[in-house]
Amino acid sequence: MAVVGFVGLGVMGRPMAANLVRAGHEVRAYSRGGAGRATAAGLGVPVVESVPEAVRGADVVLTMLPDTPDVRTVALGPDGVLEHLAPAGAYIDMSTIEPGAAREIAERFAAAGHDALDAPVSGGEAGAREGTLSIMVGGPVAAFERWRELLGAMGTTVVRVGDAGGGQVVKAANQLVVATHLQALAEAVVFLEAHDADVATALSVIARGLGGSTVLDRKADGVLAGDFEPGFRVALHHKDLGIVEDAARARGAVLPVTAVVGRLVQSLVLRGDGGLDHSALVALARELNGAVDR
Amino acid sequence: MAVVGFVGLGVMGRPMAANLVRAGHEVRAYSRGGAGRATAAGLGVPVVESVPEAVRGADVVLTMLPDTPDVRTVALGPDGVLEHLAPAGAYIDMSTIEPGAAREIAERFAAAGHDALDAPVSGGEAGAREGTLSIMVGGPVAAFERWRELLGAMGTTVVRVGDAGGGQVVKAANQLVVATHLQALAEAVVFLEAHDADVATALSVIARGLGGSTVLDRKADGVLAGDFEPGFRVALHHKDLGIVEDAARARGAVLPVTAVVGRLVQSLVLRGDGGLDHSALVALARELNGAVDR
Repeated sequence: MAVVGFVGLGVMGRPMAANLVRAGHEVRAYSRGGAGRATAAGLGVPVVESVPEAVRGADVVLTMLPDTPDVRTVALGPDGVLEHLAPAGAYIDMSTIEPGAAREIAERFAAAGHDALDAPVSGGEAGAREGTLSIMVGGPVAAFERWRELLGAMGTTVVRVGDAGGGQVVKAANQLVVATHLQALAEAVVFLEAHDADVATALSVIARGLGGSTVLDRKADGVLAGDFEPGFRVALHHKDLGIVEDAARARGAVLPVTAVVGRLVQSLVLRGDGGLDHSALVALARELNGAVDR
Repeated sequence: MAVVGFVGLGVMGRPMAANLVRAGHEVRAYSRGGAGRATAAGLGVPVVESVPEAVRGADVVLTMLPDTPDVRTVALGPDGVLEHLAPAGAYIDMSTIEPGAAREIAERFAAAGHDALDAPVSGGEAGAREGTLSIMVGGPVAAFERWRELLGAMGTTVVRVGDAGGGQVVKAANQLVVATHLQALAEAVVFLEAHDADVATALSVIARGLGGSTVLDRKADGVLAGDFEPGFRVALHHKDLGIVEDAARARGAVLPVTAVVGRLVQSLVLRGDGGLDHSALVALARELNGAVDR
């Protein structure tokens, strides 16, 4: 069992830290917000009052933070992880951030003699609670082997997908696929509705053929019931698509459909729907059709 | 068992007619092309020399033709199905055509006292051969019940999805979903390649999460091997997306991503790749990136 520093006790971080406690690790968790710390404590997660307190003496420090700048600050900034990490300590960032930033952070830790991994997750709040996340890991093989079992306390699928930044690359690709599948569902729904089809029956037939998808299996019922409670919030998917588009531009990948889907997701955020589930792309598609006189 | 007229002995029609023969029906099959008739005869399908010979005295006439104008001509034109169909005869079109044309054809047959169904299929040549097609049926309930078992000789999923034209509406929605999922795969692949990821491992991880799809399950291996042998030809998917876009415009459905995917599929046709499998969207996406200096 390990001494684990854990920074970031949001909707995902809290249940992940709780699963580490349940697996027998000695966890010291911190979150900037007092509410996050209080809720985590309520789940049985030992909390501390600062990043240095979480980091000092830890065998490994995990972060689960909203965005790239947060991770940069906590990992590399003053009184951050790198500054206080014990000589043999390792760092694993589980946030979803820019692959380039993940590579840079890994280099900084490696230069100081620390193992570092990027290990973003998919599976949402339910996966975090149930310990069934998919965890995509980038970094050295030896570091992956060393921390694989600990990561297994939070997820059922723990796969090394490449070198430093590689986890973030796969997570970004995942997010472009999911957003595009949601928009495919949205366009199918408005097309079917415009033609007065029995949408539920139609989608069940489509799901059985080459058009089948996990998005269709998990999201169609909610969409048809007009239920857009998250789930995974539009605002977070918007952030993730920003990472995809930046990383695509940086390496010269032309993604025409992702660009369109990105603008539709952006439109949802701009009109104040960032708090809805990302399947709200269907609601937006319906509204685009509302202006058309049939 | 029924007397079945069958018009259209292409890649799909031939094995479908053969499965009807195998189920014990008395089939009279015709195709404009002599090669189609010869190949069908080789599969044990009794062939005749004209549409009227296939239609006269049949309990039901099926058509499996390339596009809307072909179906209009054979169904409604001089010496066509309507002209020669026995008084109690029924008509089932299994081609993929415009929903509006399917509705109009159904009305013409109904006005002459005939049952008519639109029953497009998905599942491709393999599904046609193995009798495992999904068949999406539009038309009156009584007619569907009457011919359901006969359709079951060609497919494992036979579902009534709505009134006349309804089968075509669901098929069109299916085709927009499949094309969009293929483009999602294409953009994920070029993104992953641009970041030097292990694409096969990455796709296998994505397939296990919310990004999973039947397209990913069935097409990823071929794509990664650079194998774009059809399968389902780009030219046919291009035709189908034309139907989708026309039908969307006719009823006021705004489909922004389908529009982009439609242009990319069109581009494949224009550059002479219409004969490749529709997963060649991945090859096109790679080429779009080839012009970028990394």
